[in-house]
Amino acid sequence: MRRLYKNAVVLEGGDGGYTVLTNGFLGVDGDRIDYLSDKAPAVPYDEERDMAGTMLIPGLVNAHTHTPMTLLRGVGSDLPLQSWLFDTVFRIEDRLTPAMIRAGTELALLEMIAAGTTSFTDMYMEPQETAEAVLACGMKANLCRPVQCFDPTERPEDNYRVRESLALYDRYHNAGNGRVKIDFCVHAEYTCTAPVVKYYADLVRERRGDLHIHLSETKKEHDECVQKYGVTPARWFADLGAFDCTALAAHCVWVTEEDMRLLRERGVSVVHCPSSNMKLGSGFAPVPRMLELGLNVALGTDGAASNNNLNMPEELHLASLLHNGYTGDPTVMPAGVTLRMATLNGARAQGREDTGELRVGKKADFAALSLRGPHMRPCLDPLALAAYSAQGSDVVMTVVDGRILYDHGKFLTMDAQRVYEDADRAVWELYHGKESVR
Amino acid sequence: MRRLYKNAVVLEGGDGGYTVLTNGFLGVDGDRIDYLSDKAPAVPYDEERDMAGTMLIPGLVNAHTHTPMTLLRGVGSDLPLQSWLFDTVFRIEDRLTPAMIRAGTELALLEMIAAGTTSFTDMYMEPQETAEAVLACGMKANLCRPVQCFDPTERPEDNYRVRESLALYDRYHNAGNGRVKIDFCVHAEYTCTAPVVKYYADLVRERRGDLHIHLSETKKEHDECVQKYGVTPARWFADLGAFDCTALAAHCVWVTEEDMRLLRERGVSVVHCPSSNMKLGSGFAPVPRMLELGLNVALGTDGAASNNNLNMPEELHLASLLHNGYTGDPTVMPAGVTLRMATLNGARAQGREDTGELRVGKKADFAALSLRGPHMRPCLDPLALAAYSAQGSDVVMTVVDGRILYDHGKFLTMDAQRVYEDADRAVWELYHGKESVR
Repeated sequence: MRRLYKNAVVLEGGDGGYTVLTNGFLGVDGDRIDYLSDKAPAVPYDEERDMAGTMLIPGLVNAHTHTPMTLLRGVGSDLPLQSWLFDTVFRIEDRLTPAMIRAGTELALLEMIAAGTTSFTDMYMEPQETAEAVLACGMKANLCRPVQCFDPTERPEDNYRVRESLALYDRYHNAGNGRVKIDFCVHAEYTCTAPVVKYYADLVRERRGDLHIHLSETKKEHDECVQKYGVTPARWFADLGAFDCTALAAHCVWVTEEDMRLLRERGVSVVHCPSSNMKLGSGFAPVPRMLELGLNVALGTDGAASNNNLNMPEELHLASLLHNGYTGDPTVMPAGVTLRMATLNGARAQGREDTGELRVGKKADFAALSLRGPHMRPCLDPLALAAYSAQGSDVVMTVVDGRILYDHGKFLTMDAQRVYEDADRAVWELYHGKESVR
Repeated sequence: MRRLYKNAVVLEGGDGGYTVLTNGFLGVDGDRIDYLSDKAPAVPYDEERDMAGTMLIPGLVNAHTHTPMTLLRGVGSDLPLQSWLFDTVFRIEDRLTPAMIRAGTELALLEMIAAGTTSFTDMYMEPQETAEAVLACGMKANLCRPVQCFDPTERPEDNYRVRESLALYDRYHNAGNGRVKIDFCVHAEYTCTAPVVKYYADLVRERRGDLHIHLSETKKEHDECVQKYGVTPARWFADLGAFDCTALAAHCVWVTEEDMRLLRERGVSVVHCPSSNMKLGSGFAPVPRMLELGLNVALGTDGAASNNNLNMPEELHLASLLHNGYTGDPTVMPAGVTLRMATLNGARAQGREDTGELRVGKKADFAALSLRGPHMRPCLDPLALAAYSAQGSDVVMTVVDGRILYDHGKFLTMDAQRVYEDADRAVWELYHGKESVR
């Protein structure tokens, strides 16, 4: 099946800058882009879609989230971090069943698909539920079973999370023609022991796997690690062999200059989560410096409980604004750089070299933004519109591996009504009669 | 005409906190709210609207903007401030005609109405064009003719902008049953002379008028004032009598503790513009401290050229997140406080004591947010949803003085297609053959 998307503004490329096609034609053969030009192709396609009044951008990659936490959206907002996390979030999470996790994930998939996200990297319990939901809906995702260890005497080979993590890998890695990838995961320095990290890192390396971690998200966590081990969390992970794998470090708000150089040297990707870092009072990650050092910096929403949504156009917008304010320099985060963070850098952080930009030969993963709304007029600078003016709701079409998942408000691969009903039921069971929701 | 809006989540009140009606009934008689309860009224209304699946919030007040600058949306993004302003914005503005200003304003009105803004405070040239557009569309606005003076020898009584400002007031103040109010305006300390401010402040006071100014937006402007006059811009304005009027100071990023106390003492309202202050690299206004001191802090988008949109739900979201990140404290900006900034505080800054909250006897100025989207589920905490999850596009209805201006995608008082065509024509005339757009 070959399909041609015609008459759209197209942001071609990404690596080395975007080229704007003002009346572009994007051809798809199966799951790949096979034509891209501002001239119509000579040979007709099986189907043609007139995309006039839209802009095609690469599919957005949400490189760090906890999808099932949609069920906790708005819970404990405005509380101090410790009571939000320990007295509210953890208590609710203890009551989550696999069915609830499935319901929360599916709600998240609807939200992400409707806002142009084609792929995400997740970290949560019961990831087999998320894997099945992703396989069914047509998105891409890197999933993992987070490893934690709170007992310093536990032998690494006895850690049941490590075993579950390996079993998940064996069962789902590269499922759905590579749409689902299974990452490995150490939740964070403060939730694991050195022997477990060391043991696990060896297993990951043997499998040539990708390792997903939380790193220096809060000042408290960063400082306490230095106090406890005499080294920063980044150095602690590196010394235990964790960066001998391909790694993906979420947050990195409090990393030092030396940490950033270390991450660069070891090829660790960073995932910047501006909304969550602000909402929880964690701070502002030194992203302009990371980019200067040549780090691969992607973007993520984090979970809906600390954001409170999964809206990648909003993270793109925030990443474009925030650092200007923080550094006092309006030139530090150009639109072309932040769009690349939200797309190509995310794909690279996921180990997906075949996507992340609109280019012939790449996978057909893209979103169409409507240019019809008053806030998207005039279209003087399409790249600036994408970074500064576009909202999640401007997405009118989301395509993954050439398959249309979302088309002008309609979900083509999911039954939204059924998902809403499942989510309502899960929420009712999760909270009924409880006082943890204000 | 009496109309009942029923079965909605309603955020009642505002001053002293919001009360959530989970299945609320809001009755409107003419232009005022005459019923508000979670029980149905005993007496039927002329018309009933079922608002199930929506949340009614007070109309959003955009307390500082430059509406015609929609025509400059995206222009010079990512440039250093000086070249953005002097080499790009000012050069384009020099070419603006009244017809273009009308077209840009109308485009802005569509954008604001569609995102739940019921009233705005504007500062721009040719404000009679904006006044006529506002009168025609049914919104509320405080408008002004900004006064500037670049010639230190000019006698205040010879300043033509002062004369235009007074003429505008005489012609339009309280037009449209009070929907249009005319403010007075000194553009900023760095664009005016002391004699003109002093002379003009007397005229404003005689008319018991409101004075709109830009204050300490950038460090450069703040520091240069201290260097030039030995006092901060706030003190400079106060000493010239400008705060003997009711005043509205936009930005206030670099105000000192003493400045904030002075503004509080003189009853000056502050308008916080988080997107613009970030985008232009101006910095972060000390809003938590202002609130602590009891200042009336409202929210604004600033112009579309430095935002790049006029989306009040986004400013509400940003104001709710940003200061947590800056102070490291997730409790400093609770949802109820930021929602009040976006509504009631804005109405007060406009001198509109009869609106800004949903309460019996107040003007019927409100917006309905859809709760149907995946990102608005579950509805565990409506206030948190409004502040942290809602997007401009969730607005399905905008009502001003009891009149429905926008209803599920349809503009009832404006011909959107005609506005788009006028804007296209204005853009073509403004930029054709010019190189100022990258």
